[in-house]
Amino acid sequence: MVERIAVIGTGLIGGSFALALRAAGFAGHISGVGRNPEALDRACERGIVDDFSTDLAQVVSAVDLVFLSVPVGAMEPLLGQIAGCARADTIITDAGSTKQSFIDAARRQLNTLDHLVPAHPIAGTEHSGVEAGFAELYRGRRVILTPLPETRAASLEAVEALWQLTGARTERMDALRHDDILAATSHLPHLLAFSLVETLHRMEQEEEVLRYAAGGFSDFTRIASSDPVMWRDICLHNRSAVLASLDQLQRGLDRLRTAIDGSDANEIESTFAIAKETRDALLAAAQLPLDETAESR
Amino acid sequence: MVERIAVIGTGLIGGSFALALRAAGFAGHISGVGRNPEALDRACERGIVDDFSTDLAQVVSAVDLVFLSVPVGAMEPLLGQIAGCARADTIITDAGSTKQSFIDAARRQLNTLDHLVPAHPIAGTEHSGVEAGFAELYRGRRVILTPLPETRAASLEAVEALWQLTGARTERMDALRHDDILAATSHLPHLLAFSLVETLHRMEQEEEVLRYAAGGFSDFTRIASSDPVMWRDICLHNRSAVLASLDQLQRGLDRLRTAIDGSDANEIESTFAIAKETRDALLAAAQLPLDETAESR
Repeated sequence: MVERIAVIGTGLIGGSFALALRAAGFAGHISGVGRNPEALDRACERGIVDDFSTDLAQVVSAVDLVFLSVPVGAMEPLLGQIAGCARADTIITDAGSTKQSFIDAARRQLNTLDHLVPAHPIAGTEHSGVEAGFAELYRGRRVILTPLPETRAASLEAVEALWQLTGARTERMDALRHDDILAATSHLPHLLAFSLVETLHRMEQEEEVLRYAAGGFSDFTRIASSDPVMWRDICLHNRSAVLASLDQLQRGLDRLRTAIDGSDANEIESTFAIAKETRDALLAAAQLPLDETAESR
Repeated sequence: MVERIAVIGTGLIGGSFALALRAAGFAGHISGVGRNPEALDRACERGIVDDFSTDLAQVVSAVDLVFLSVPVGAMEPLLGQIAGCARADTIITDAGSTKQSFIDAARRQLNTLDHLVPAHPIAGTEHSGVEAGFAELYRGRRVILTPLPETRAASLEAVEALWQLTGARTERMDALRHDDILAATSHLPHLLAFSLVETLHRMEQEEEVLRYAAGGFSDFTRIASSDPVMWRDICLHNRSAVLASLDQLQRGLDRLRTAIDGSDANEIESTFAIAKETRDALLAAAQLPLDETAESR
């Protein structure tokens, strides 16, 4: 029974998790851990956490579950610290966007993997920080859990139960498969959005171009306003799957470039028609109201 | 004084133009022209047009202004037909997404360019057809007019006045500059969205990938649901500017790929940070409520 939780990183993801648990009636104690006392104080004011400390060991030694919601690159040193102070039966779970790298880090750092429950909520916004969290973030969204062979069923189920309290739909998957799928459907679109905006920034008539861009593509580039450090870490920690997806896209763009260069009307139209059919079909298949199908708001 | 208008193509763009004029109190007569009598009948039912015909000459010979809202590739043959039946002082304007190709076609087809007013409303949605139009589409959006040296001031001003009635902000620009800017800010994002979705469609585990895509990127790929024929024509008619933009993006993606491949954390983060700063700044500079900055809804 999870009664005391430590949330390490009380920004969008960790803050929303805590707020959602509260909103669902979770009666346990939630402590915040972080490096910035002002942000933690604000998390307290917002009702995200009951109390907080910048002393990780002090908090972690007293809880049943540690929830890690920090950029993927910050996970391994934290796991090392946690190994030195957590009880042997403390559940350790995370919300990182890449899963195999987290498992590898845990294998290097933790004394036991019995209570390790890697997880990834497929939800977010382009905003970050302690003000960004809100209780409804996970409602109707998928949370993918990638348990290890060592993971005890009771710990896995405890984490699933908490996610279900937030309104999310949980499912289990192999970590490498998770990383491949997310590389294509989340990491690649983010790379593209960042790269498109950076490309426009480099253009000669940047100022004028961007003046019209303001009218044009705020939707398409919304995810280019995401946190650069978080996405840097995702690229580094899911490197081979991200590169494979990027290469597939590059081949697609090359095909399209060849078709446009050769004024190949049929090929261009057929590419666009396949894309339209695919997207229309997947929206229909989602069987969700449109505002619940977006990963981000 | 424009009292009688022919709207050729009563889909999203032409339908919204007519509905917006009506909503603003335009008291003149609006006739619809198209190939599909059922769609035209429906346009009549929706109050988009007062009457309609599939006989272009019959309608065009009787109006003060012809508004062309058809895919860019359909413009030239229509201009040829119009030349054979319009009065010498009939204003001819369009809403096509590429402007130099329209001007070139008009130079080939029309007897006079005195009353030709090329225009492009920077507005749209991913929907098309007679049901897609709505009176508010152009409110607060830019409409770029690219008059020729021959264009008479009175005709230019008459078209500007109609657009201002729809709630749009008009401005004038050189056609080639328009085509360059739109290639970067509108055509390129559409190509990317189409190509991304087509790439996912080609992936081995397509079905599973797309199941997660449904959660992930409906916002980012919304424009991939746009009309394939319209966007095929834009690629063909703004070919060199589109290819130049695509090449700049490819170089950006190559830089990013190299950085990820080499685990160059600084380069990755700096690329993402430039993109975030650029986008955040342009949203701030737009000084518009967010729901008015999107090209499409």
